[in-house]
Amino acid sequence: MNKVIHAIQDDYPAEFAHCFGCGRLNEKGHHFRTGWFGDKTLTLYEPKDEYMAVPGFAYGGFLASMIDCHGTGSAALALHRKNGYEPGSGHIPPRFVTASLQVDFVKPTPLQSILQAVGTVEEIHPKKWRTTIEVFAGDTLCAKGDVTAVVMPDSFIQR
Amino acid sequence: MNKVIHAIQDDYPAEFAHCFGCGRLNEKGHHFRTGWFGDKTLTLYEPKDEYMAVPGFAYGGFLASMIDCHGTGSAALALHRKNGYEPGSGHIPPRFVTASLQVDFVKPTPLQSILQAVGTVEEIHPKKWRTTIEVFAGDTLCAKGDVTAVVMPDSFIQR
Repeated sequence: MNKVIHAIQDDYPAEFAHCFGCGRLNEKGHHFRTGWFGDKTLTLYEPKDEYMAVPGFAYGGFLASMIDCHGTGSAALALHRKNGYEPGSGHIPPRFVTASLQVDFVKPTPLQSILQAVGTVEEIHPKKWRTTIEVFAGDTLCAKGDVTAVVMPDSFIQR
Repeated sequence: MNKVIHAIQDDYPAEFAHCFGCGRLNEKGHHFRTGWFGDKTLTLYEPKDEYMAVPGFAYGGFLASMIDCHGTGSAALALHRKNGYEPGSGHIPPRFVTASLQVDFVKPTPLQSILQAVGTVEEIHPKKWRTTIEVFAGDTLCAKGDVTAVVMPDSFIQR
């Protein structure tokens, strides 16, 4: 089984670690963790039963959430590497937010199964990165995603 | 303030009323409710604080979930009306699943605010409907969505 040892979210500063999807400090959240997987990016997650569309299958919003946070995490990994750093190196990574999200639901996605989101990241602009994502349950491609993420603007700092 | 009196989700058969986003029988879910608003569709919802990206602002996955379920609910409303029925009429509506979802995040979306998703539905095919969606916090457009939904296929019935 694949593993994510060093996730970018482990290194987010505390004030940016509260996201319901991927914040390690959000007690009720998913705690998605995204790391390098060769030159791809990887998030592994087994959704709880309540995230169902109908019994046994994940609802669209869960998959969109996983793809969304995988996209921002992948962008942060890529810019961090461009800056010369890796997760776990003790350096604070950049923090991204999603500009746009596209999800194609390919097959019903089983719950009680470890889902793997695999991403390919490319730079569009130094502050804007795109990740194309495939979500698998075992060998089955369940969803495809496309996330454009930008470095978090100042408007996201608490009012 | 606008209200949704008769929501399509109130009339889903019990076996299709467990969605984390919009199922009235999912104890832990959002319970999104979607009704007609003139010839548009409307979902109103105030997200709980934990659905944050950073403190004070909703995370992308929450907005994607709201847009996703608003899209399937809107498609169900529209096909139900085409069949001659309205929510609350005592007739069982059709149940849709999402084929594809697009979200553009326009502005940071405040928590502690009632969000309004307003949809425009169009028929692409008798079993495939598209909803374009705007999500407002007060008068501020926070996100735009585009959902293509299809009548639930048999592959979604429990394994």
